[in-house]
Amino acid sequence: MAEPFAIPRSVEWNDTHITILNQQKLPLVTEYLELKNIEDVWDAIAALKVRGAPAIGITAAYGLALSAQQYETESLEKFKEHVRKDRDYLASSRPTAVNLFWALDRLVSSIAHVSSVNEAKTTLIHEAIRIQIEDEDVCRRIGEHALSLFQNGDRVLTICNAGSIATARYGTALAPFYLAKEKGMNLHVYASETRPVLQGARLTTWELMQAGVDVTLITDNMAAQTIKAKNITAVIVGADRIAANGDTANKIGTFGLALLAKAFGIPFYVAAPLSTIDLATKTGEEIPIEERNPEEVTHIAGTRIAPEGVNVYNPAFDVTPHDLITAIITEKGIVRGNYETELPALFAKEARHEAI
Amino acid sequence: MAEPFAIPRSVEWNDTHITILNQQKLPLVTEYLELKNIEDVWDAIAALKVRGAPAIGITAAYGLALSAQQYETESLEKFKEHVRKDRDYLASSRPTAVNLFWALDRLVSSIAHVSSVNEAKTTLIHEAIRIQIEDEDVCRRIGEHALSLFQNGDRVLTICNAGSIATARYGTALAPFYLAKEKGMNLHVYASETRPVLQGARLTTWELMQAGVDVTLITDNMAAQTIKAKNITAVIVGADRIAANGDTANKIGTFGLALLAKAFGIPFYVAAPLSTIDLATKTGEEIPIEERNPEEVTHIAGTRIAPEGVNVYNPAFDVTPHDLITAIITEKGIVRGNYETELPALFAKEARHEAI
Repeated sequence: MAEPFAIPRSVEWNDTHITILNQQKLPLVTEYLELKNIEDVWDAIAALKVRGAPAIGITAAYGLALSAQQYETESLEKFKEHVRKDRDYLASSRPTAVNLFWALDRLVSSIAHVSSVNEAKTTLIHEAIRIQIEDEDVCRRIGEHALSLFQNGDRVLTICNAGSIATARYGTALAPFYLAKEKGMNLHVYASETRPVLQGARLTTWELMQAGVDVTLITDNMAAQTIKAKNITAVIVGADRIAANGDTANKIGTFGLALLAKAFGIPFYVAAPLSTIDLATKTGEEIPIEERNPEEVTHIAGTRIAPEGVNVYNPAFDVTPHDLITAIITEKGIVRGNYETELPALFAKEARHEAI
Repeated sequence: MAEPFAIPRSVEWNDTHITILNQQKLPLVTEYLELKNIEDVWDAIAALKVRGAPAIGITAAYGLALSAQQYETESLEKFKEHVRKDRDYLASSRPTAVNLFWALDRLVSSIAHVSSVNEAKTTLIHEAIRIQIEDEDVCRRIGEHALSLFQNGDRVLTICNAGSIATARYGTALAPFYLAKEKGMNLHVYASETRPVLQGARLTTWELMQAGVDVTLITDNMAAQTIKAKNITAVIVGADRIAANGDTANKIGTFGLALLAKAFGIPFYVAAPLSTIDLATKTGEEIPIEERNPEEVTHIAGTRIAPEGVNVYNPAFDVTPHDLITAIITEKGIVRGNYETELPALFAKEARHEAI
């Protein structure tokens, strides 16, 4: 019998091309695109067909590896020069995406000590695959830790899309729901639509439905009523950046949900990989709040919904103070309360692990 | 010199017709419609071209008075029968609108003791005008009381449209902003867009801009960040129904704003006429939460924004517990804290006033 449900992936390596899910067309059309050359990859990233920091990094890494296969030179130096040019080209596809540069540079570094062009070509592919496997592994561990905090029948509220299609697979905040489904546990997800760009309505509902996870959509201003009427047991969100003291920058609306969770006495969890924790940022006060184009607020799906010339405030994210966060869930375990000492300890654990 | 700004009115009596603002076309098109017969009036109410309980009542009252002018009979009984039939017809335009029935019945009662058809025709017009004048007076008094709570430079957050175009003029929650403008006081309004139907984005911003009031639009999930970043000094909202203990049913999202106001230590005000206070409803627990069509959430301006078949929770309003409400502002004054004794006292005052 065919399995009717599957956790969607946004990026796949297929030797001669890269297959990506076109997230721009969701949820109306489920379209997969074959990226056959570096220009296709550049365009997919620039046009937001692929989104989510890890998914962008993985796509770019595959793009660099794919493009490298075409260079027929015997000279390793000439080959590396091609790769460096491709790296710069792909890095220009989304100049503010830190994960994009990190993945591309990791591929460039991976061929620093190879002895032939052929070895370099294989190494690039393997390194890109490794990035994807590692990210899937990180997400799965986050999901396992997060799932230990939930019980069968729990009703959990989330915002934005910290999901499978933003990562290699599983996602961060959504990972526990996929693992619960695999284990036959019932969790009910409430997805806040996440204005202005509607990632909750467009993406989170879609990907959870693909995997057969029970999900209900609400508008963002229904959160308080939903927590009360539906007996929500916890809130879980992803993170853009976590400061050394635990203050967490995430999609606009997260801070409000944290305040509601406190008012209702339910736990508020942040699920994120160690790569999101920035110990150089001491507190959330140091994180500037990006303001985006007013048209994101005044228009929906191309239709104007507000008067011409209206003033708009459009912060892209907010910062949730650490004292509102019940726990931060990472691939290395769950940290509660004393973030200033426990977050650096996670990295020490990481370093020890790598040293073995 | 022409006055560039004016507080918009949604309904006006023009002897041979009724002029209404077509709220369905806002904010893209500012269109005024001439309603020339009772069918036009029925259609305007049924098609939501006029909205807001007081504005609907006023429009229906004018519609009944307008239609009555055409009956050429000398028989008062036959005339009254025409009026009663018209009353029933107009009452069917929006069968859940309590204010509609109240206004129509008040007109029918007004001609109970007239002595001629001519007197009846004039009485109907005068009674309808009286309803509008009284509502404008109520709104202005609410605005004056509310304004006493604000200071020059205050930044105030509101939700939905408890505004001029929902009433005879001024509105309830928006009334203090118009009066402040008249007095040369600067208040800055932040309007939450109010998903799913977007009354904040479509109507509140529009009407405040018409009157030259400083207004900034945000999405509903930006409320916490806005209160913090813009130093919001108070939240003010309207009400659908206020229970005897002060619990207040209002547009979905109100309860969440009340919890945020408490978390930030800023006052949360409800502005509403006495007609909204229902002493027969003991507490908010007795108010059933209406759930509306899922398409309001899954579609915006006709465009689908969520997957086909997704579960939706779409409560039309929520109930804010009285202990989160700093004050209830009515045309008879401001009530704080002990609502169970002070709300009935307002009606006692009312009765004494009417007895004079």
